[in-house]
Amino acid sequence: MKKYVYLFLPNNAEGSNKMQDILGGKGANLAEMCNLSIPVPPGFTISTEVCTHYMKYQKYPSGFKKQVNDALKTIEFTINKKFGDTKNPLLLSVRSGARQSMPGMMETVLNIGLTQKTINGLTQQTQNQKFVYDSYRRLLMMYADVVMEANANKKNIRIKLEQILSNIKLKNKVKKDSDLNEKQLIKLCEKFNNIISDNFNTPFPQNHKDQLWGAIEAVMHSWNCKRAMEYRNIENIPHEWGTAVNIQCMVFGNMGHDSATGVGFTRNPSTGEKKFFGEWLRNAQGEDVVAGVRTPNPISNNSKHDLENQMPSMYKELNKIQKKLERHYNEMQDIEFTIEKNKLWLLQTRKGKRNGFATIKIALDMLSEKMHNQKSMINKIKPKHINEILLPTINYNTNHKLDIAGKGLPAGPGCATGQVVFTPEDAEIYFNKGKQVILVREETSPEDVQGMFVSNAILTSKGGMTSHAALVARGWGKCCVVGCNDISINYQDKSCSTSSHTIKQGDWVTLDGSKGLVYIGQIELTKPKIKKNELFNRLLEIINKKKKITVRANADRKKDSSNALALGAQGIGLCRTEHMFFETERIIAMRKMILASKSIDRRNAIMKLLPYQQKDFYKILKVMNDKPVTIRLLDPPLHEFLPSNNYQINKLAKDLQITQSNLKQTIDILHESNPMLGHRGCRLAVTYPEITEMQTQAIAKATSQLIKEGYSPKPEIMVPLVGNLGEFINQKHIIQSALNNIFSNQSLIKKPSIKIGTMIELPRACLIADKIAVHADFLSFGTNDLTQTTFGFSRDDIGSFLPEYMSQKIIKNDPFESLDIEGVGELIIIAIKKAKKIKPDIKIGVCGEHGGDPKSIEFLVNAGVDYVSCSPYRVPIASLTLAQIS
Amino acid sequence: MKKYVYLFLPNNAEGSNKMQDILGGKGANLAEMCNLSIPVPPGFTISTEVCTHYMKYQKYPSGFKKQVNDALKTIEFTINKKFGDTKNPLLLSVRSGARQSMPGMMETVLNIGLTQKTINGLTQQTQNQKFVYDSYRRLLMMYADVVMEANANKKNIRIKLEQILSNIKLKNKVKKDSDLNEKQLIKLCEKFNNIISDNFNTPFPQNHKDQLWGAIEAVMHSWNCKRAMEYRNIENIPHEWGTAVNIQCMVFGNMGHDSATGVGFTRNPSTGEKKFFGEWLRNAQGEDVVAGVRTPNPISNNSKHDLENQMPSMYKELNKIQKKLERHYNEMQDIEFTIEKNKLWLLQTRKGKRNGFATIKIALDMLSEKMHNQKSMINKIKPKHINEILLPTINYNTNHKLDIAGKGLPAGPGCATGQVVFTPEDAEIYFNKGKQVILVREETSPEDVQGMFVSNAILTSKGGMTSHAALVARGWGKCCVVGCNDISINYQDKSCSTSSHTIKQGDWVTLDGSKGLVYIGQIELTKPKIKKNELFNRLLEIINKKKKITVRANADRKKDSSNALALGAQGIGLCRTEHMFFETERIIAMRKMILASKSIDRRNAIMKLLPYQQKDFYKILKVMNDKPVTIRLLDPPLHEFLPSNNYQINKLAKDLQITQSNLKQTIDILHESNPMLGHRGCRLAVTYPEITEMQTQAIAKATSQLIKEGYSPKPEIMVPLVGNLGEFINQKHIIQSALNNIFSNQSLIKKPSIKIGTMIELPRACLIADKIAVHADFLSFGTNDLTQTTFGFSRDDIGSFLPEYMSQKIIKNDPFESLDIEGVGELIIIAIKKAKKIKPDIKIGVCGEHGGDPKSIEFLVNAGVDYVSCSPYRVPIASLTLAQIS
Repeated sequence: MKKYVYLFLPNNAEGSNKMQDILGGKGANLAEMCNLSIPVPPGFTISTEVCTHYMKYQKYPSGFKKQVNDALKTIEFTINKKFGDTKNPLLLSVRSGARQSMPGMMETVLNIGLTQKTINGLTQQTQNQKFVYDSYRRLLMMYADVVMEANANKKNIRIKLEQILSNIKLKNKVKKDSDLNEKQLIKLCEKFNNIISDNFNTPFPQNHKDQLWGAIEAVMHSWNCKRAMEYRNIENIPHEWGTAVNIQCMVFGNMGHDSATGVGFTRNPSTGEKKFFGEWLRNAQGEDVVAGVRTPNPISNNSKHDLENQMPSMYKELNKIQKKLERHYNEMQDIEFTIEKNKLWLLQTRKGKRNGFATIKIALDMLSEKMHNQKSMINKIKPKHINEILLPTINYNTNHKLDIAGKGLPAGPGCATGQVVFTPEDAEIYFNKGKQVILVREETSPEDVQGMFVSNAILTSKGGMTSHAALVARGWGKCCVVGCNDISINYQDKSCSTSSHTIKQGDWVTLDGSKGLVYIGQIELTKPKIKKNELFNRLLEIINKKKKITVRANADRKKDSSNALALGAQGIGLCRTEHMFFETERIIAMRKMILASKSIDRRNAIMKLLPYQQKDFYKILKVMNDKPVTIRLLDPPLHEFLPSNNYQINKLAKDLQITQSNLKQTIDILHESNPMLGHRGCRLAVTYPEITEMQTQAIAKATSQLIKEGYSPKPEIMVPLVGNLGEFINQKHIIQSALNNIFSNQSLIKKPSIKIGTMIELPRACLIADKIAVHADFLSFGTNDLTQTTFGFSRDDIGSFLPEYMSQKIIKNDPFESLDIEGVGELIIIAIKKAKKIKPDIKIGVCGEHGGDPKSIEFLVNAGVDYVSCSPYRVPIASLTLAQIS
Repeated sequence: MKKYVYLFLPNNAEGSNKMQDILGGKGANLAEMCNLSIPVPPGFTISTEVCTHYMKYQKYPSGFKKQVNDALKTIEFTINKKFGDTKNPLLLSVRSGARQSMPGMMETVLNIGLTQKTINGLTQQTQNQKFVYDSYRRLLMMYADVVMEANANKKNIRIKLEQILSNIKLKNKVKKDSDLNEKQLIKLCEKFNNIISDNFNTPFPQNHKDQLWGAIEAVMHSWNCKRAMEYRNIENIPHEWGTAVNIQCMVFGNMGHDSATGVGFTRNPSTGEKKFFGEWLRNAQGEDVVAGVRTPNPISNNSKHDLENQMPSMYKELNKIQKKLERHYNEMQDIEFTIEKNKLWLLQTRKGKRNGFATIKIALDMLSEKMHNQKSMINKIKPKHINEILLPTINYNTNHKLDIAGKGLPAGPGCATGQVVFTPEDAEIYFNKGKQVILVREETSPEDVQGMFVSNAILTSKGGMTSHAALVARGWGKCCVVGCNDISINYQDKSCSTSSHTIKQGDWVTLDGSKGLVYIGQIELTKPKIKKNELFNRLLEIINKKKKITVRANADRKKDSSNALALGAQGIGLCRTEHMFFETERIIAMRKMILASKSIDRRNAIMKLLPYQQKDFYKILKVMNDKPVTIRLLDPPLHEFLPSNNYQINKLAKDLQITQSNLKQTIDILHESNPMLGHRGCRLAVTYPEITEMQTQAIAKATSQLIKEGYSPKPEIMVPLVGNLGEFINQKHIIQSALNNIFSNQSLIKKPSIKIGTMIELPRACLIADKIAVHADFLSFGTNDLTQTTFGFSRDDIGSFLPEYMSQKIIKNDPFESLDIEGVGELIIIAIKKAKKIKPDIKIGVCGEHGGDPKSIEFLVNAGVDYVSCSPYRVPIASLTLAQIS
């Protein structure tokens, strides 16, 4: 018969860490800890295959129940207690455990086995009636909520029971749950039992076996509850995996002053510091820590409340175990423990979630500690981790008078600003309107995941660093502040208040997730200074050694260029020139050119821009010095340079001394039905060759100047929107004569050789790439425009149908974020094959946001590109991706 | 030594009709006529190789001059006259003659050899001083104009000389040139000689050999004059060919009452009637007829002025010769002849130009006469010929009170309407502004070709059916009225007047080129009734037997559909449904749907359109009966159905009882930056599935109804703008359920099977054609949109750069008229290969204007399409093309 149940007993488990697929992460690690002689309450794991079988056939595989009963007997024997026994009863926990951690998404039921029959035995045994009834009321609540409530998303019964708990506390003038005395607890349990009977038309089961099987089924069911499915969609976890179920002897952190519970990380998950980090609560069950209901104390921070001071021998033992676990797994661990009457038990160990900064620091530290090699170190870092350390921050130097609304715990990295909402639903509504959102909650729960996902940041008034909000935000690298007690929330009014402020829905706040601070208002955020980021630079060095192809940046100002260099760019792949035409004096010359009726007037006007352009290019080329800078000639349609509203039109007409109607007529003539597909790019340059001539002269002059000053500028000239060979030849001719014209007048020792190439951003350009390659020194895919024309999607207009397409799964990813491999990708492959056949050494690049998208990069490298170019802040991500796939 | 000079002598020529490449058309035919014993004045042809050599090296090949001199001696011997002899002088004509006829484009010089020395000898010989001086003044004019005037396009000298001729006629109160007497002519020649000397600082050459070589050079030069090059560009004649030069003994039609000159066609070039047709002038030189300076008489129309009555024996001989020539060439011939003192000479024979109607009639007649077979008959007909017989006409039944401005000769087919201009330059200016143009001239000359080309029609006040205007217009199948003497033109004022009207530049006139009538104003034109066109139907029958693949029509109304059937369509390949939404009542329902905020309201609104759509489909399917009708679901973006100006917006808001600002907001939201690439086609149908459902229900209901009435409707449903497989599957699902829904409620014997397919009109659709093919019954290329996205060209916006692209030859043909084989074509080939690999029998069509373009059709057939679909009037052209390539 197939084995469905795997025992884990002291020093002896049937499973191991390698069996995650069938035991789930938790089960496999429990087994592994047993094998490592770490104290783990004995138990067994029901394999994921039972869950998948159950989902498929709505029943358990045959023989499974017997295996559970047999395992239970072994446990009873091992621990010398009996499940359901009236004198010496065994209590069990029933927990989920998937292959990949899904924190808080699925269900847990504790204290299984407590019935009217076993309560007395347990009371006699423990001599602690308060503990027993406290455990019983927890079981009643959990069981009703998790097992008996059919709709996992409704939680009606939970609210009712919590109401009763609140009332009883109010009535007895008691603040904390743990302050309730025996009598009050007995009364509470009685009420709970009545409410449950009324609510479900069936009483809470007083048979221990019914409890167990109810809990097992509920845990399996919870695999397919809405929040778990949403989480899997976000994290790309397959829905077919199913969950394992771990059944384990209960140990109690709430058995009195000599009991406690806690969680810990082998290193600091926020800073990466190599120091045991965690939180604990005396006389509590684990859920009290994780759910953030009570604010816990640190494990070890040299304070009188820490575990090290409060329970030194327990701390010593725990510290030894956490070191052993990290060494064993070669990985930072996240552990759960319980102390029952001065006896330490480990309940869980798993790979610890951490933010990007910590991930990188730990990876680099472990490399120094020789815990792993360079290759596996690079593979441990994900693009999002780099994203996080490059997250925006508040510039405290320029923002002196910040209005602090409150202080909490720094749970998620970076800073964020947005408009406040108080429900996940409102977060989604705001987000869909294109607004920046900050979700404010007392505490978050797994139902809130979708709303948290769309928020810029999360702020909770309760909970600690290991609360649900903190765990989830850290996983996503999202800014988060938790346990901000200064704030009290009024869900009814959709507002919250501090001692000094009232914040209503829609008000702006700004969070510093690294300091745990909340500010009133919208504060401008600045990007981090990369040059001084020692951690980043250490990482960059290793990455750059590993990767094979070049990463350039899209930058068109001096500042962006030096930023790009700091971020590791090896050149500029796309220097757009259009912004250079918009500054005050320049735009006037530009407009004069557009409105000129004769070629000679047009020429005179555009040539006024030459000194400006020359200066722009000079600055960028100087910063980049010996690195290539690909300058794209003017791309947008002319009407973008003309005003659109009446006031501006009238003003311009006065400035240019023409009549308003004349100007309006010109604007009308220049209007286009589909500007994306209109008179722009090289089409403009073919009809107004003066533009190309002026721009090329500016490049040539800047180059000459720098050479004379001892620099080695490497400009490359790129013609945009070529779809016909004749366009490129026409432009190349103009460029070459302009270059010759300038260079022959300069007394240079050696005439610079400037590469002339083109963007490939139209389907037709891909199809004639061989013909273009004959004449071009390089090709650079403009994947944004290529995506627009291949799909026939206007990026500005897809908002009206793309969300529907995504939800119906007609399109899996936004093709403007991740390259469409099936369509656009095929055109790219066609183009590269054609071009390389004609000119095997032609340089081929990609400049479009896809150049910074990891999934797209992998495809592009395989397709044969020589470099990718993306916005400066994506350069390190591109570099990392390239290092990982090389 | 290479042979450059080919003699043609009575019954004995060195060349033949097969040597057109080196002798040109005229030279080869002159040789052929000699070989056929037809009387041709002796002469020789200088081969085209001399011209190409001369163009390349600016000098004659060595030995060439000697060959000319030797040939000249043979001619002198043959005709017993001597070139330059003072007593018995030989006069020569020097004419161009290219491989392909370029009527009037190149130069001719006649009467070469007349000098002060030879005049007396000729006078003595002919005893006709008037004739000699008339010939001399013609030589002076021509030679000064053609040989001495360096710039062939200026014609300054010609104007000066014509001014003198006018003055002398005025002074002597004489109307016609031929009314001038000897003395007046001698005086005129003296003045001509003086003006020429003054003008060029060199006298008219009095040496006969200088005259000859000057003329030869001028004729060769004329190959590269502007008008000849323009003509070649229009007619696609290679510029490298060069012209031959024909040097021939002069014969004179202006030697008195027993002399004459004329041109003729072996069949009527306007009607195709099998009857010798031509015009002649007594006592005139050929140029008088061709240039349209005098209005000639018919050769044979049973009038007293015809040649048959006036010179019966000459007519008899000529008639015999024309029959012989047509039989010999198996082709309708265009001949030139001269009668010198009752002796008939043939000066030219060539394939006769004719209009489309005549072309088709002659081809069909010659097939009946067994002069050629079916295959060569089909190849003789060009698409433009069919175009011509399908040209628009004035509906005289509905237009009773037409205001006739004048009557001329019916020189070019069909009717046309447009705004009057008086110069070819103005014609181009108007045309470039998108206006309809009618060019009005006294007579046209080859310089006017470009302006004639852009005009809808040509009207001349002088000239006959063989004048320059008539020849050119007929060649192009363009509407033309010539010799409309009722009109007198004032070029200065840019106006013309008749006895009753003054027509200014910009005024509208309408021409009937088949009746020779000119009407004041813009008259609505109607397309011809095809069903009753016996000629067309005979042709269609032959064509349809020959062609292999199907031709369908793009039609979306009952009337268009029956028209399409009459024009030979074998189905409808594209039935657009959007126009059906625009009629008064329907547009309101449509707008209600667009403005509905809830799905249920949207559904209710759209379902109001169902009965209308059902009726529309019913009518079309009934007309087409058992032929397939491909119905495309709604394609345009929603904002096209909403009003755009304030007045209409206010009205609509009232109608729909919503606020104006609400309505404006909706319109704003629906506004798109690039509607071509926006929320349209199946994107609309995915987000508003009610539209597809309603349209499909309408199709299904109409189909059921027709089946019950005994028809065999064959609707096919086509989903527009698919770029993702998911879109098609989504739509197919909706369509199938709607069909099932309707059909299962109808008591039909057999449930109809309706094909569901998609347009392929996006590059991405081509790239995933294999995946689409799995699910689609047919694919139809929408080449218009595919061209837009492949090039990244918006058809609405290319006006600002496409003309420049065409003139710079960056693009050879407008890709919206003739399919871009290099780019769009490659995508089509990719798509067809992919689709057929998956589903070899999938039906593949083309519905886009390219489906009616002959060049595109040839490509598409080779690419593997199963049918083409085009606008009804292009159906026969597509059929013809298919018959020709099959």
